[in-house]
Amino acid sequence: MSDAPVRSGRRARGGGGAARRAERTAVSIETAKYIERNIPNYEVLNEEALQVIEANAETVLAEIGVNFVDNPAALERWKAAGADVVGERVRIPRGLARKLCETAPSTFTQHARNPERNVVVGGDNLVLAPVYGPPFVRDAEGGRRYATIADFEKFVKLGYMSKWLHHSGGTVCEPTDIAVNKRHLDMLLAHMVYSDKPFMGAVTEPVRAQDSVEMCEILFGKEFVQENTVMTSLININSPLTFDSTMMGALEIYAANNQACIISPFIVGGAMAPVSVAGTLTQTLAEVLAGVAYSQLVRPGAPVIFGTMVTSIDMNSGAPTFGTPEAEHITYGAGQLARRMGLPYRSAGSFCGSKLPDAQAGYETGSSLKMGLLSGVNFMLHACGWLEGGMVASFEKFVMDADQLGTLHHFARGVDMSENGQAMDAIAEVGPGGHYLGCAHTQANFKTAFWRTDLLDYKPFETWDEEGARDTQTLATARVKKMLDTYQQPALDPEIEARLRAYVAEKKASMPDAFG
Amino acid sequence: MSDAPVRSGRRARGGGGAARRAERTAVSIETAKYIERNIPNYEVLNEEALQVIEANAETVLAEIGVNFVDNPAALERWKAAGADVVGERVRIPRGLARKLCETAPSTFTQHARNPERNVVVGGDNLVLAPVYGPPFVRDAEGGRRYATIADFEKFVKLGYMSKWLHHSGGTVCEPTDIAVNKRHLDMLLAHMVYSDKPFMGAVTEPVRAQDSVEMCEILFGKEFVQENTVMTSLININSPLTFDSTMMGALEIYAANNQACIISPFIVGGAMAPVSVAGTLTQTLAEVLAGVAYSQLVRPGAPVIFGTMVTSIDMNSGAPTFGTPEAEHITYGAGQLARRMGLPYRSAGSFCGSKLPDAQAGYETGSSLKMGLLSGVNFMLHACGWLEGGMVASFEKFVMDADQLGTLHHFARGVDMSENGQAMDAIAEVGPGGHYLGCAHTQANFKTAFWRTDLLDYKPFETWDEEGARDTQTLATARVKKMLDTYQQPALDPEIEARLRAYVAEKKASMPDAFG
Repeated sequence: MSDAPVRSGRRARGGGGAARRAERTAVSIETAKYIERNIPNYEVLNEEALQVIEANAETVLAEIGVNFVDNPAALERWKAAGADVVGERVRIPRGLARKLCETAPSTFTQHARNPERNVVVGGDNLVLAPVYGPPFVRDAEGGRRYATIADFEKFVKLGYMSKWLHHSGGTVCEPTDIAVNKRHLDMLLAHMVYSDKPFMGAVTEPVRAQDSVEMCEILFGKEFVQENTVMTSLININSPLTFDSTMMGALEIYAANNQACIISPFIVGGAMAPVSVAGTLTQTLAEVLAGVAYSQLVRPGAPVIFGTMVTSIDMNSGAPTFGTPEAEHITYGAGQLARRMGLPYRSAGSFCGSKLPDAQAGYETGSSLKMGLLSGVNFMLHACGWLEGGMVASFEKFVMDADQLGTLHHFARGVDMSENGQAMDAIAEVGPGGHYLGCAHTQANFKTAFWRTDLLDYKPFETWDEEGARDTQTLATARVKKMLDTYQQPALDPEIEARLRAYVAEKKASMPDAFG
Repeated sequence: MSDAPVRSGRRARGGGGAARRAERTAVSIETAKYIERNIPNYEVLNEEALQVIEANAETVLAEIGVNFVDNPAALERWKAAGADVVGERVRIPRGLARKLCETAPSTFTQHARNPERNVVVGGDNLVLAPVYGPPFVRDAEGGRRYATIADFEKFVKLGYMSKWLHHSGGTVCEPTDIAVNKRHLDMLLAHMVYSDKPFMGAVTEPVRAQDSVEMCEILFGKEFVQENTVMTSLININSPLTFDSTMMGALEIYAANNQACIISPFIVGGAMAPVSVAGTLTQTLAEVLAGVAYSQLVRPGAPVIFGTMVTSIDMNSGAPTFGTPEAEHITYGAGQLARRMGLPYRSAGSFCGSKLPDAQAGYETGSSLKMGLLSGVNFMLHACGWLEGGMVASFEKFVMDADQLGTLHHFARGVDMSENGQAMDAIAEVGPGGHYLGCAHTQANFKTAFWRTDLLDYKPFETWDEEGARDTQTLATARVKKMLDTYQQPALDPEIEARLRAYVAEKKASMPDAFG
């Protein structure tokens, strides 16, 4: 019984099943399907430039090489595959890494406990997931403060209720009130219980990746987890050209269990990579080639994503900067490189350097989100809630960004060239000097014709003024409160919830708290 | 003397000329050259869709036709050209309008009184001009109020000092304290005296267009004006499919004088055009074909721009909405249609519906500006200062947007694939686990590597907090004040300035004030 897949288990129950399903539907909230693009990608690099970068990346791997640190098993794997290993330095002959990457799938399905929320990662699709990693949270009422598990749970709830968000994410903020060696358990529990969207696993220690797999076995059933991808987790590369044993240990566990990993350089240009776009793209490609190849050495066919997390640096202050044109060049270029490898692509997000959800945040984020869509990103982490260079998860910005994600869905639909879309009857009906508000075509189409915000202000000036002349942050504060006040937990088999809670309690009791 | 070109006149002066020129240079402020794109355009429509829209536009012209209202001379011109004219309705046989458009130049130079500020409109270029038309202004201190000529002059000064703005624009706000029949004189005087960048002429009555030409004859010399384009003016079409005698009268004067016009439908989708993207593109193309063809009937070879000003409508409130995905589809698609006609393209801007320079303004504007760059726009009116759906010119948003325009310049440069750009030496020098901050390549390139804001906040959190935790609007208020405090008028021959002022005084004295 304990190993039976949840889904079959549910189906097997008779009697009140239909009624329970109806009840579940009643409290369910609307989530849009992941984006299936019907538009072209934007390509900033020409064929010649792409070939130069690809050749340079092979040179980097063959002549400079990469380090796999504190990881003798990895070095053995590389030796056996034909690499030149000296100490911890792995030099990979030209073409070998790219060849090894060929077993990685070009698309994969990540399952959610609610099958309607499954996502297909790769191809023309775009899956949107929330901000990952901030140690602080901010809202208008409480200001900036260390994040807690209570904040974490609120973000999971907001993500569950956000129509344009397909994924519950991972470390939506760091629950700093829980011991470092235990917080992954509470985070996973929150994703599993408070949302029914897909989520990410822990990567901060290999053993925590193992815990993630075991909790998924309770939620989905052991057999189901072995046969299906139920987590997509974030494996950062220590740029430049270094793969540490913590991240690789987590990767090894996930790959061995057929769970997906984003293999992602995290680069502040000018610090962890050259200060030029082509140089950063070269290093990024070399790093991803080595990382993805390694995942396929662990388990050929393991699902992986070509990751690129790039910012520029402000040479005056040393601070990372966001929404800058150079980071955009890299994001567009890396998308082209990923597609040439036939791999799903992760990049972009609701990036901004601003400390507040103000105009700066809007400029930088608006530009970054659109770039993510046009650069062919398949998995967009940080798609909402990012503030202050990723140091802060903002409640207000979470709902602002989540609303903006609707524009990506609508843009990605492309242009309707059907007879109805061409609207020649309408133009003839209205004629010179007329107006379209009342014409038959407008009446038939106006409800679905234009994207409409659920948050921003479209009111006449006088109405807006009478209602308090509210700015975007003020509107967002009210929306956060309203969403959390009306949140309803998605139905989950009480027995499974109890087993998950027992697993977490047992694990936490089994070791002393460790901070840092 | 009065008819001598200014530039020759200046050159002809000996003696203290070099000293005067040095003085001019001393007070001159830096302005970037108009953008010359080294990047591809984004094309949302495929060949088949483009052909359908082009065929449909010809059908609209041939079967529905357009109205030229209160303009017997225009009807005569159309008849002579082979159109079917019944009453004020002009039906244009398939292919005729497109054929007539062929004499319009694909690029033209608009001259400024400072030749360094000349702009070339068309090709891969992008010329940026400020907001046009708002009856209100807003700043943090004074709130929202009717615009005055004092406000107008401040905007001209800010535009002159804005590095990334190439053009002084036209009606940067409506000086409502001046009579409607006289305000064009004060506006032109301000552009001519307080800036040395190119500007736009009056279009609200044919006689005011004539005044604009005559003032340019004083500024540039009569002969120079006849031989060169010194104004680009905005001719709106009364969509759907209507050309009124006021706008056409101004167009006739400008075309006859070889001055450039933007011929531009102003469309709120769902009101002045069908509620669908393809329908709006069809109507837009039909209108521009008819308008540009008409300009070439007036004077073959007259410089014109394919204009598209499109917003969607909020079907709940009836308000126009900005930064929406449907307007983006139209902007990208119209760019493709303009390039297929070989005409310069005007569209996009710092569009937003927000009442305040807040996050909503940032999201909508950030997205709209980037769209303008990627859609191949050659002349971007409204590139800074637009607020509240164009009802308000915002001082703070003017400098915020003007700063963001720097990102367009940097993105348009494309990716440097030189040996220095490839940075292979740097990657080899730093190697796995190193960092790039001190390496030779970084030292050689960091000053120009990344775009840097002159306004937004990049500071460490603690510094920002100690300095008052200022949001973008607060930073912008300070920047506006600092710019206006340090403004210095660009040198202008005192005799020319005196003649311009005398012309304005004389014209204003010649007629009673008329409001409305």
